[in-house]
Amino acid sequence: MAVNNLSIVLAERPTGDIIPGTTFNQKITPAPTSADIKDGEVLVEALYLSLDPAMRGWLNDVRSYVPPVQIGETMRGASVCRVLASKSKQATVGDYVCGFTGWTQYAVLREGAFEPSSNYPGLREPKDMLSVLGMTGLTAWVGMTKIGEPKAGETVVVSGAAGATGSIAGQIAKINGARVIGIAGNDEKCKWLVEELGFDVALNYKDADFKEKFKEATPKYIDVYFDNVGGDILNMCLARAKEHARFVMCGGISQYNSTNPEGPSNISRVITMRIKMQGFIVFDHIKDYGKARQELSQWISEGKIKKTEHILPGGLQVAEQGLVDLYKGSNTGKLLVEVKNPNETPSKL
Amino acid sequence: MAVNNLSIVLAERPTGDIIPGTTFNQKITPAPTSADIKDGEVLVEALYLSLDPAMRGWLNDVRSYVPPVQIGETMRGASVCRVLASKSKQATVGDYVCGFTGWTQYAVLREGAFEPSSNYPGLREPKDMLSVLGMTGLTAWVGMTKIGEPKAGETVVVSGAAGATGSIAGQIAKINGARVIGIAGNDEKCKWLVEELGFDVALNYKDADFKEKFKEATPKYIDVYFDNVGGDILNMCLARAKEHARFVMCGGISQYNSTNPEGPSNISRVITMRIKMQGFIVFDHIKDYGKARQELSQWISEGKIKKTEHILPGGLQVAEQGLVDLYKGSNTGKLLVEVKNPNETPSKL
Repeated sequence: MAVNNLSIVLAERPTGDIIPGTTFNQKITPAPTSADIKDGEVLVEALYLSLDPAMRGWLNDVRSYVPPVQIGETMRGASVCRVLASKSKQATVGDYVCGFTGWTQYAVLREGAFEPSSNYPGLREPKDMLSVLGMTGLTAWVGMTKIGEPKAGETVVVSGAAGATGSIAGQIAKINGARVIGIAGNDEKCKWLVEELGFDVALNYKDADFKEKFKEATPKYIDVYFDNVGGDILNMCLARAKEHARFVMCGGISQYNSTNPEGPSNISRVITMRIKMQGFIVFDHIKDYGKARQELSQWISEGKIKKTEHILPGGLQVAEQGLVDLYKGSNTGKLLVEVKNPNETPSKL
Repeated sequence: MAVNNLSIVLAERPTGDIIPGTTFNQKITPAPTSADIKDGEVLVEALYLSLDPAMRGWLNDVRSYVPPVQIGETMRGASVCRVLASKSKQATVGDYVCGFTGWTQYAVLREGAFEPSSNYPGLREPKDMLSVLGMTGLTAWVGMTKIGEPKAGETVVVSGAAGATGSIAGQIAKINGARVIGIAGNDEKCKWLVEELGFDVALNYKDADFKEKFKEATPKYIDVYFDNVGGDILNMCLARAKEHARFVMCGGISQYNSTNPEGPSNISRVITMRIKMQGFIVFDHIKDYGKARQELSQWISEGKIKKTEHILPGGLQVAEQGLVDLYKGSNTGKLLVEVKNPNETPSKL
């Protein structure tokens, strides 16, 4: 008897906020079976699904670094999965692999479309494949190492600092000897950034005197700004930029759901302060993944990088609400949906 | 008997537009004489004064790449001058030199604060020291060569294309084999860009169907955008940027007089298209001036670069109105004030 496979598909494009129950639909199809896989393929079940700020952009019908998700198509997303059957030399039954399964329980992945666990040196837990050793940690590494290039004694500011990428980015800057200021959306996050992660300063952008505090915290101005949020905070950081500052343009979560996104009115500072403002997408840097994962693993084992995951139980059904909450800043660290607990018995398909 | 020295000094900081007669004052002092110069100094009379979009920014009391002009201080500006007396080995009486005299008729310049004509290989006319071989041409060279780096077959867009810097920047891109699209503010300028300077396309941004024409003119999107204007056109170019485009942030003339400058609402494209947006100030690149002037001179002699100056007669008195008109796009090519015609008899001080 065929096992049901739950997928979450795009029902209609949101204009502003994602509306659970309206933006996405649940879809049930028969799960693929071990009989369906061809040479070079694996049959997998998803354990954790990654929720990422970039996902809102994938729903817009505009030219971008990936094609928009189509109406009726399974929502795009990366999962860490368990291999249930394999015709690939890269993975055997019971292995963990990471791939763009989309928001679905069961999938067939072809070689090249998944990463075997051998790509993750020092892997301790399957969920690390999505967080510190996955897209999140790699994004932090690429942005900070290849664009920000912080030097000892420089001032580095990270917004969205308690988020999955920001928290790693700030710690990488610390490892490079910089003075690191994190910006986050509540006091607990700020406490965590300073007390657990070792940021020098953390500021709550919802505080009434946030801008004054920020000015006080940047007496020598900013050498590197790692931007995850855009909007007002980008503007403020432009105003505090030092000559030849590097602005690592990683995300703009404050604007993703806006129907009228605001640009930085301070953009003229790019000229007067000779700022290099550079956007990047981690997928362009695949050739660096090996080196990045090695460094990140090393830093984790040395206790120089600490990580946190915020795990939503409840399966794929909770993914859409989780994504909505992500834009409200609900999470500290990497936001994951537990599709299936790794300790449960593997499915039989 | 002392000769009068007319200077134009800052009377009050403008909040929006410069207001002739209010923003600046005329000031008469006794001219310096040959008795006033010390070893390493020259006494000069100004012939041409450079008017530049950047000047508006120098009037604002904000942190920038140069200190703001102070109230009561002579307005900052570069002139090409004739040497009337010299105690410097770098220049003899009758030589042309270029320096930041400010808006004044007569000045004493110290070595290091002026550039002797020997720094300008292939110099034909004194006014070239302010235009194609001066700050203007150097700005175009630095921005296009060191940041834009256009390659053969790439699409380059230049805004403010009929201005002093834009017109040279576009021609440098042509020399590099790029397809060059210029944006300017009237049909005569567009005609000049295509017919005289060899731009592939020139578009009048005041045309009702400008945005559609622009889209048609950039079917393969934009590899390099040389921005002199900011505002709407920057936004539009972000929307048409190709992956890994380089945005050379040179000026933002559309916003300089605005009390509410607008940022690019499209800034998220910096991320999705992995754009490098880099500001620069030509003064940071003094070590490249020699090479740049040699190349520019060579290109002029080969007919690959053509230049135009828009000269305002009438002496320093017309400088403030000239500056106001500059922001309205009155000029084609380099805007200069003729302080004194080089063919007139040298002053005796």
